[in-house]
Amino acid sequence: MNRLKLVFHINEPDKWQRVIMNINNFLNDVGQGNADIEVVANGEAVSAFKSNGQTNKMLIEQMQKLAEIGVNFVACQNALKAQSIAKESLPEFVTVVPAGITEIARKQTEGFAYIKP
Amino acid sequence: MNRLKLVFHINEPDKWQRVIMNINNFLNDVGQGNADIEVVANGEAVSAFKSNGQTNKMLIEQMQKLAEIGVNFVACQNALKAQSIAKESLPEFVTVVPAGITEIARKQTEGFAYIKP
Amino acid sequence: MNRLKLVFHINEPDKWQRVIMNINNFLNDVGQGNADIEVVANGEAVSAFKSNGQTNKMLIEQMQKLAEIGVNFVACQNALKAQSIAKESLPEFVTVVPAGITEIARKQTEGFAYIKP
Repeated sequence: MNRLKLVFHINEPDKWQRVIMNINNFLNDVGQGNADIEVVANGEAVSAFKSNGQTNKMLIEQMQKLAEIGVNFVACQNALKAQSIAKESLPEFVTVVPAGITEIARKQTEGFAYIKP
Repeated sequence: MNRLKLVFHINEPDKWQRVIMNINNFLNDVGQGNADIEVVANGEAVSAFKSNGQTNKMLIEQMQKLAEIGVNFVACQNALKAQSIAKESLPEFVTVVPAGITEIARKQTEGFAYIKP
Repeated sequence: MNRLKLVFHINEPDKWQRVIMNINNFLNDVGQGNADIEVVANGEAVSAFKSNGQTNKMLIEQMQKLAEIGVNFVACQNALKAQSIAKESLPEFVTVVPAGITEIARKQTEGFAYIKP
């Protein structure tokens, strides 16, 4: 079977636990290292990258663990600006792109399946 | 025109009527037998497969009718476990997969269009 | 890089501002004229095409501007009927299709990336 490629789209902050769980269940199923996964956050979902607050702290730790095994986390610059989040304040595993929608569209042209949890 | 292939993703219980209506409208448009349709339920959406309750009874009857004309209904095993739903209690037209996300991604690699109602 | 093609799916009225903003941010990123964009509205989202009300007036003006630079707006006939919206009452830039789901699926087979804001 071909290697699976998935792009997760998240634009609402309260969907993060669902995204993390979906990815963990997926990786338990196919095995670490057998898939390419990217998570693109735009809209208010980028607020999770703020390092303040206990909820975000736990969430960022979960993301960090996934980032360490190869999951890409991408934030939309427009969304960061709208939420007044400085690029420098982001966890270092987060990549910033000019527009999240462009990134999601490009990934699909590269054969990534789209998932909106 | 090529035969259309669609995978519907549902992860919230209150979206079931919308999914059923979308499929019925779609089939009225293209004609029964002219498309491949799969519905993948994960997260809390799998609660609809519990056979108790009047709402579920009506919903399962609607799904049953669609299953009889070839629509596949697929449930995520992780979600069933999280909702304490025994595999044996499911309507017989429901197929269980280890992880719903894997199924959705695979269908897209097989040329299925993704729809999130 | 290949020209990007995107189909936006909207089925909830309160997601319109998000859709408009996503498209504007996307176009600022890739440049007008460098992408094909279609917005397919089904379900209650078609209520935004009613020309009454101040909110809709502003929204329709924003859509009109996007339509003028080539964005296609498509409404599902089933949804219009369900919302008692006459085809003749629609803004002239809106195209009506028999079923929104069919349109979204076809666009994906034509290489359009799916986005659900």
